[in-house]
Amino acid sequence: MNTAYNNPIKIGIVGYGNLGKGVELAIRQNKDMELVAIFTRRDPKEIDTTAKAVHIDKITDYRNIVDVMIICGGSSTDLPQQVPYIAQWFNTVDSFDTHAKIPEFFSTVNKVAKEHHTLSLISTGWDPGLFSMLRVLGESILPQGETYTFWGKGLSQGHSDAIRRIEGVKAGVQYTIPIETALERVRQGENPVLTTAEKHERVCYVVAQEGSDKSVIENSIKTMPNYFADYNTTVHFISEEELKANHSAMPHGGKVFRSGLTGEQTKQNIEFGLTLESNPEFTASVLVAFSRAVYKQAKQGHTGAVTVFDIPLGALSPKSAEELRANLL
Amino acid sequence: MNTAYNNPIKIGIVGYGNLGKGVELAIRQNKDMELVAIFTRRDPKEIDTTAKAVHIDKITDYRNIVDVMIICGGSSTDLPQQVPYIAQWFNTVDSFDTHAKIPEFFSTVNKVAKEHHTLSLISTGWDPGLFSMLRVLGESILPQGETYTFWGKGLSQGHSDAIRRIEGVKAGVQYTIPIETALERVRQGENPVLTTAEKHERVCYVVAQEGSDKSVIENSIKTMPNYFADYNTTVHFISEEELKANHSAMPHGGKVFRSGLTGEQTKQNIEFGLTLESNPEFTASVLVAFSRAVYKQAKQGHTGAVTVFDIPLGALSPKSAEELRANLL
Repeated sequence: MNTAYNNPIKIGIVGYGNLGKGVELAIRQNKDMELVAIFTRRDPKEIDTTAKAVHIDKITDYRNIVDVMIICGGSSTDLPQQVPYIAQWFNTVDSFDTHAKIPEFFSTVNKVAKEHHTLSLISTGWDPGLFSMLRVLGESILPQGETYTFWGKGLSQGHSDAIRRIEGVKAGVQYTIPIETALERVRQGENPVLTTAEKHERVCYVVAQEGSDKSVIENSIKTMPNYFADYNTTVHFISEEELKANHSAMPHGGKVFRSGLTGEQTKQNIEFGLTLESNPEFTASVLVAFSRAVYKQAKQGHTGAVTVFDIPLGALSPKSAEELRANLL
Repeated sequence: MNTAYNNPIKIGIVGYGNLGKGVELAIRQNKDMELVAIFTRRDPKEIDTTAKAVHIDKITDYRNIVDVMIICGGSSTDLPQQVPYIAQWFNTVDSFDTHAKIPEFFSTVNKVAKEHHTLSLISTGWDPGLFSMLRVLGESILPQGETYTFWGKGLSQGHSDAIRRIEGVKAGVQYTIPIETALERVRQGENPVLTTAEKHERVCYVVAQEGSDKSVIENSIKTMPNYFADYNTTVHFISEEELKANHSAMPHGGKVFRSGLTGEQTKQNIEFGLTLESNPEFTASVLVAFSRAVYKQAKQGHTGAVTVFDIPLGALSPKSAEELRANLL
């Protein structure tokens, strides 16, 4: 607790994987916030933290204590189940990122939150999240134009998992890398038509099991439908030691462009980019900033489900509106 | 009027310089908007437009017709006088950019707008405006870090004027250019301490009057306090024809970086950049998008003065919240 803030925003973390750990670290950087507890499905004694760990079954004991619950589970099964449940008692923030299911998820959470007078910000982080904000900003300002999203250079969890399922593969990681010539064409305002495969290449670092045929593995990767077949894919075989030493971090990032025309064929270009040494830590920092906004918006009486499109940017900041106008405008 | 929008947002433009002309062009790109009239202090007959031109003395005749007035005057004398006056009857948007006077301007406009139940968005464009938004976003997400704003490559009106006031100068322009090595240090997450002069160089293209001493002119420019003395400044003497042919456009742009640390010294970098072939046309496009937001926010009952920090991004878009969630999140 910081003396500058007599009444810090009280945060709970639900789930303690990479994202939950990132949120714990991010809260320490924000003096107007306090971590009340980490809620887990595991035995709380097994949670390696100096913070208070509580079994998730006890979460309702904290209903008048925690201002915002940051829910750090996965999008496939955890969040669709946990967010509507927890929204019965708490304001929430989550990083639900299954794009196709966002409308349905929104509707479910909205119903619960409206009914229980809580506020839930869904699907934040950097994509969905910051990248979504930049897409809306870009097309609103330059209605005549094209939006481009590039991902990487970054470790893709889904593609790394796909590699590891191949027979003969002991371990491996996959990096998605934007193709520089495609980036440059967009920057020049050419407004090219580009498929995802024309924007990105895939580079794999693979540890083969002893006795396995590397050429068979390489071919299995390169011809895998959806994941690799359409892409320029490179496969490097490396040792387990090298994998551990050089490929244990979770870097990521990407770029959103809006390239448009104004007036009489005047080219205008907006570019937003992230270069992240740690994807989960950055995502966590975004969730924490938005939990402040949820706290403020809930205090103003907002209820239901909202997204990054509904939040005024000033609500993300610990600074007052006066201070923002004087120093950051 | 577009058939897709039965009830377009009705816009008025006050002032018809480069910015006002840009707004006129930008409105044409937005099918949910309609330009009602251009209000001018000049004789409306002298205004070279296919739109309706009206003397500013008649502006109150439009009080139940125009939804939002986009006020396109200069920051030194026009806006401080016009915005509080017009806010008595209309919702307004302006690009007031005298940073030091923003709090005072806000307070004056806020008082009038609150009293008359109108809504005024002050100080938008790209800086103040988009750059301000990115500064708040960056420091809210990465509280432990540094923010950097670079301007250019772009034509600086103030510095070009300063050159033209020098004896022996017939005409001239000045470009502000970010120093690439400084940009690179910021991108690498070094978090260097950099003065404005260490971030930018200045390049001047000057037409000398016949018989004038070029070395005297060059020295006068390079030693001019505040404007050039602290900078690496280059002066090129060119012909009047070359100036007209190559330096009549108004390109600009710049970058905002937030470079910070999360967790245990993990580097994270956010970069936002604009590359603009026309500064006034892009600024105009920003004003037009924010006029849509003002229209929507006013309809929801908001009154008083607001800034870009108070506007949810979804309000900038003509798309519905459902559509934004389904397609842009």
